[in-house]
Amino acid sequence: MPRPPKPSETVAGLPAAVFSPVAHRAKAAPGRVLALHVGDTWMEPCESARMEALRVAAHPGMHRYCETEGLPALRAALVEKLRARNGLAAEREGVLVTAGATSGIGCAVAALADPGEEVLVLAPFWPLVRGIVRAQHAVPVEVPFFDRVGSAADAVAAIEERIGPRTVALYYSSPSNPSGRVLPRAWLEAIAELARRADLWLLADEVYEDYVYRGEHVSIGTLAPERTVSVFSFSKAYGMAGNRVGYLAAPPALAAGIHKAQVHSSYHAPTAAQLAALAALEGGAAWLEAARASYRAAGDDAAAVLGVPPPEGSMFLFVDVRNRLGARGMEGLLEDALAEGVLVAPGASSGAAYAGWIRLCYSSVPPADAALAVRRLARALASRR
Amino acid sequence: MPRPPKPSETVAGLPAAVFSPVAHRAKAAPGRVLALHVGDTWMEPCESARMEALRVAAHPGMHRYCETEGLPALRAALVEKLRARNGLAAEREGVLVTAGATSGIGCAVAALADPGEEVLVLAPFWPLVRGIVRAQHAVPVEVPFFDRVGSAADAVAAIEERIGPRTVALYYSSPSNPSGRVLPRAWLEAIAELARRADLWLLADEVYEDYVYRGEHVSIGTLAPERTVSVFSFSKAYGMAGNRVGYLAAPPALAAGIHKAQVHSSYHAPTAAQLAALAALEGGAAWLEAARASYRAAGDDAAAVLGVPPPEGSMFLFVDVRNRLGARGMEGLLEDALAEGVLVAPGASSGAAYAGWIRLCYSSVPPADAALAVRRLARALASRR
Repeated sequence: MPRPPKPSETVAGLPAAVFSPVAHRAKAAPGRVLALHVGDTWMEPCESARMEALRVAAHPGMHRYCETEGLPALRAALVEKLRARNGLAAEREGVLVTAGATSGIGCAVAALADPGEEVLVLAPFWPLVRGIVRAQHAVPVEVPFFDRVGSAADAVAAIEERIGPRTVALYYSSPSNPSGRVLPRAWLEAIAELARRADLWLLADEVYEDYVYRGEHVSIGTLAPERTVSVFSFSKAYGMAGNRVGYLAAPPALAAGIHKAQVHSSYHAPTAAQLAALAALEGGAAWLEAARASYRAAGDDAAAVLGVPPPEGSMFLFVDVRNRLGARGMEGLLEDALAEGVLVAPGASSGAAYAGWIRLCYSSVPPADAALAVRRLARALASRR
Repeated sequence: MPRPPKPSETVAGLPAAVFSPVAHRAKAAPGRVLALHVGDTWMEPCESARMEALRVAAHPGMHRYCETEGLPALRAALVEKLRARNGLAAEREGVLVTAGATSGIGCAVAALADPGEEVLVLAPFWPLVRGIVRAQHAVPVEVPFFDRVGSAADAVAAIEERIGPRTVALYYSSPSNPSGRVLPRAWLEAIAELARRADLWLLADEVYEDYVYRGEHVSIGTLAPERTVSVFSFSKAYGMAGNRVGYLAAPPALAAGIHKAQVHSSYHAPTAAQLAALAALEGGAAWLEAARASYRAAGDDAAAVLGVPPPEGSMFLFVDVRNRLGARGMEGLLEDALAEGVLVAPGASSGAAYAGWIRLCYSSVPPADAALAVRRLARALASRR
């Protein structure tokens, strides 16, 4: 029982710093530190989607509450987008604007799992998702996957092995944060078939769908619409992570449940930021194309410098450094990288099986800085060989 | 176990429409409907705090992620404000910017109560708080209070009666949504003393602190700093409810726990909206004074028309209509009010003991509309006598 000053077991069980245990030392570091440890995008949004472009004269009441499911105009545009772009049979009642994909995924977990029930999480995974599942009192079950699965049959076998009597849902991100992989259609077909057989919900994190460099992005909701929650975001797509606007598509009855969880947690996504999202959707195509080309080049350069395969998508590389850890282990490596002026995230934040890996985000700083940062990192790694 | 298409018990147990069961019919109603059922403010924010005033040239990166505890400049300003205005011994580590007070209260409940533990809620209460407590799997225990407690001793007796072995915290709002009351210092002293004796956390919802018309607002955190979470918001204070920015002050160890819950639900309050909040804090004093005078006049007028005492604070009146319900009950009354062109909220949303009451917000429409709306409402009520 939490008594002053002790907080609840719930929050005691949540991780504090998932992105870097050494980031707080960055301010004391000599010289300029290049932060590749948090996923972010350095480009300012396209001009029509900046806050300064949203005027009260054009949008009276734009600082007031709006419909908790999302602004009607944005929701209508999203139904169109989900149909045309993703091939989903989206209806208005199944589309919900969320306070970022983070809140959307949290509310979806609330609707998919009761306390103690298990959510499979394909690993390595987005560092926040494990805590998001736990915050809902569900149990994340890690499925080592992206670094070791080579076929649809492998994918099914890896997942099936972790399904137990309390398993209710499967979460994955593709394009994958952090592995940079894009799941092929044939694998997703096999996963959808498995979900149908085991009667599981699917929670598909598609926030990097616009950043595919090799392969093709497929929404699993086209394959198993009756059991899929598809989660998207404007954060990474249009360079507005601070705006906190995402959206999701789900069967309407489930969307109604997710909406109730949202009303009782974030209430609704920020109104002005929803107007910005609509502006990005309507006028951001050229911006997005330029961003994609820029991040692709940065990712390819980073992969070449670090000696790993070029990314298929997303904005991350996940690098095996097990043979570079030495006596001081991961914390020593992160410290040495910081001494070179680079922050990266420890792999353990993306799964217990990945303590010897690191994650880096090549879109969080301008291309010249990203190029500099990965060369600094390569130097830090080389000195440990 | 939630299987497609069935959602979890968690969300099945949350209310859907808390503010009005008839609001969805408003669009089909003839004539203009005046919506007093949701708490909102009609005034546009002061010019310096509008989105259009926030330029990328002045704030590079303003659409990116920021520090998850809040923008450093805003946090620093809030420490000053909490000390100077509220008399709290606030420190930076105990101050957290939240994604609205709604998210702040949800994350605070996560940190104060484990599943199955009880949170006392002084009733009638803010319609969302019961579901917010339930969404964290804690148990809200309603304490009928604002309409029947007349002294500090009464207050202690009413609360003490509901304390059980699983009680961990007490939530209240003052200035009160919906009763319009402002708890006197002597009562708060007695409640703080009781909390210390029973070793309870205090969760003080102070989002209407700037809207006091009679009496004085006292932060209970000055009386029991070791066990109080004080929650504030820019939404109502500065007319920016759509921005989703609030803040809280708590003992630092607890604030760290609340912060973890926040990172795993909303991540952080929207960045641009935090800049707007800082602008409001720095330049919004005259705006706030005008808003206060306007709402006070609207509240006094509404109270006189409806024959209830004038509000001490907040933006709500809570009216006993038990002798006006008739055969069609509350839904019939809400329908008749809608037929007159007014939406109000049913009292049951503010507590099981208040099924025969209604709540109205007199700040959600301009003064002339508020005056018109309460006269329409009075007519609907008179016809049922």
